Amino acid sequence: VAKRLEKFKTTIFTQMSMLAAQHGAINLGQGFPNFDGPEFVKEAAIQAIRDGKNQYARGCGVPDLNLAIADRFKKDTGLVVDPEKEVTVTTGCTEAIAATMLGLINPGEEVILFAPYYDSYIATLSMAGAKVKSITLHPPDFSVPIEELKSTMSKDTRAILINTPHNPTGKMFTPEELKAIAALCIENDVLVFSDEVYDKLAFDMDHVSIASLPGMFERTVTMNSLGKTFSLTGWKIGWAIAPSHLTWGVRQAHAFLTFASATPMQWAAAAALRAPDSYFVELKRDYRAKRDILVQGLKDVGFKVFPASGTYFVIVDHSPFGLENDVAFCEYLIKEVGVAAIPTSVFYFNPEDGKNLVRFTFCKDEETLRAAVERMKQKL
Amino acid sequence: VAKRLEKFKTTIFTQMSMLAAQHGAINLGQGFPNFDGPEFVKEAAIQAIRDGKNQYARGCGVPDLNLAIADRFKKDTGLVVDPEKEVTVTTGCTEAIAATMLGLINPGEEVILFAPYYDSYIATLSMAGAKVKSITLHPPDFSVPIEELKSTMSKDTRAILINTPHNPTGKMFTPEELKAIAALCIENDVLVFSDEVYDKLAFDMDHVSIASLPGMFERTVTMNSLGKTFSLTGWKIGWAIAPSHLTWGVRQAHAFLTFASATPMQWAAAAALRAPDSYFVELKRDYRAKRDILVQGLKDVGFKVFPASGTYFVIVDHSPFGLENDVAFCEYLIKEVGVAAIPTSVFYFNPEDGKNLVRFTFCKDEETLRAAVERMKQKL
Ligand SMILES: CSCCC(=O)C(=O)O
Ligand SMILES: CSCCC(=O)C(=O)O
Repeated sequence: VAKRLEKFKTTIFTQMSMLAAQHGAINLGQGFPNFDGPEFVKEAAIQAIRDGKNQYARGCGVPDLNLAIADRFKKDTGLVVDPEKEVTVTTGCTEAIAATMLGLINPGEEVILFAPYYDSYIATLSMAGAKVKSITLHPPDFSVPIEELKSTMSKDTRAILINTPHNPTGKMFTPEELKAIAALCIENDVLVFSDEVYDKLAFDMDHVSIASLPGMFERTVTMNSLGKTFSLTGWKIGWAIAPSHLTWGVRQAHAFLTFASATPMQWAAAAALRAPDSYFVELKRDYRAKRDILVQGLKDVGFKVFPASGTYFVIVDHSPFGLENDVAFCEYLIKEVGVAAIPTSVFYFNPEDGKNLVRFTFCKDEETLRAAVERMKQKL
Repeated sequence: VAKRLEKFKTTIFTQMSMLAAQHGAINLGQGFPNFDGPEFVKEAAIQAIRDGKNQYARGCGVPDLNLAIADRFKKDTGLVVDPEKEVTVTTGCTEAIAATMLGLINPGEEVILFAPYYDSYIATLSMAGAKVKSITLHPPDFSVPIEELKSTMSKDTRAILINTPHNPTGKMFTPEELKAIAALCIENDVLVFSDEVYDKLAFDMDHVSIASLPGMFERTVTMNSLGKTFSLTGWKIGWAIAPSHLTWGVRQAHAFLTFASATPMQWAAAAALRAPDSYFVELKRDYRAKRDILVQGLKDVGFKVFPASGTYFVIVDHSPFGLENDVAFCEYLIKEVGVAAIPTSVFYFNPEDGKNLVRFTFCKDEETLRAAVERMKQKL
């Protein structure tokens, strides 16, 4: 294995899903729904396959999807973007992240991110040869330490990565935090890479795209995907929205990482993004109900539960149960209790920071959530 | 754009396809069929979508597809590989190439490739920071200059990239060439990255996988895909087969480039690879007929046509028509004649080497091929 990837293990999601399967555990670890995506989106993919939309898509995306993404972005943020020059379709948000890092960051350039972070951020920054600075968000509310950010960011900083609603904590960046970050980025001429795949799962406050703040669009790559919003995590359709000078870098990396994404899924994604408003309202209502069930259940079990304002994840402190750290706790939970969660220490620069915290997902039907809680009540 | 990608332009395939569309030219440039993939494969994808196979696949591939790939490889090469540890499903062969370079090559390591080369090779080698040495294959038969390879390869060489059947030339590496390359790789302890996406389109000799030569499996990454064999270039299912120590590197890069490929397409790919032998026989028969039509037509038009032993491409010398170089010729051909081809100079270290050569594809129905020839007869 090349040195740039030497320090990484099999992703924790794969590790935990495999262990869960081996032990017949209820999998509240990796974030994929145990229910299916909407019929109208599935039918649109089937129609595209039947219609012979099976050859290479345009590299930057099927034109109709680029348009649907731009329309959706306008509805969500008020920003008008050029679907041809400012939107790039990728193979999930994961590829958007990789293409952004490899397409825009030079070796030795400094990038700031917040821990805990989604594991692909740090691996793709390593591929790009970036110099990474990590700022830890602390429980209970995982708020952004603005003073620390101020002293960390400088004219030498090339970019900052944000993720709101935030995986794994369920935190949402507040308007005040976003404004403070934006001001510092403008002051220091820093780019923002903003992962917003959970934007439609914002329960306790409205989601704000940092690109929509004054002066920010021109320095922001906004990334999103189909998977979470349409419960189709396996279709691997994502995108990056950025001004054309940044889009150029993203597209050049994308061209040589995958060239294009699955054509029929792109046609279906365009149909999905044109769903009526009621779709998004119902999605949020359903997920809020699931969140409430799991959060209450975890409290009843005896965890210290942190606020889950957005995403389909919730973070808890497992220390009441006396296991030595998050990894040991998750192994015990799978093997002895029959429930899988994700340990968080791998998402920190300093693994110690995550040793009391584990993440549960509530992207499961209510019966499954209740069954998992029941197992924990009985065996923890 | 990051420096690693600064020197690359919009891929030539995208450039030419866009220009072709603008001018209503018959597109014999980018290699995608103008006919559809087989019904049984499309139906398998539709069934997978209906069956709810729409969430994240296992990162290294849906187990049934890994198995089908291993079975197919055994039929094709006689090699028995472990589907769980030696096969990785990727988003097209393009991602297999990127993951191989980023997962196995360190900055400064030397990699040899043959020109003309598929453009993603050089871009992904640049992403990996490799030191590239290029050996040019010359017409008429584009044979491997073994003496030059001997003097180029050394203990400092980390890997050599080969592609057989070869895009863009249509050349197939002969058993003698493959043996000579293998001997040098063993002598110098060099890895082989072998792109074999056109292996089922081998007309004038049998395809040989270099991994099947003695002592070679352990040092070879064999890459392939669904697209060309099943006329489904837009589905973006590819794979890399390699011994587990090399597979580890490929998988670690893949995990953070895309994580996984489209789940329903993976299920359908497994069904495709289990096609009866007759499917592959008919595919080759149909493509041989197309090749013969285009090759004869191009000769009748007045081109010097080089042998097209494999792939769905044929290289010609355009100099009888008096345009100054390949790019000028292709522009003239699109705008004045109404046919698109691909200039080859971008596939060489030294663009001069390709200035007389352009590539046509015959992955089109026979009527389209005849119509293109007719246009050239009348207007060139
Ligand atoms: C790509 S696997 C990770 C899935 C996910 O979104 C999560 O569980 O955090
Ligand atoms: C990924 S676009 C290039 C398609 C192709 O195989 C070719 O035309 O060479």
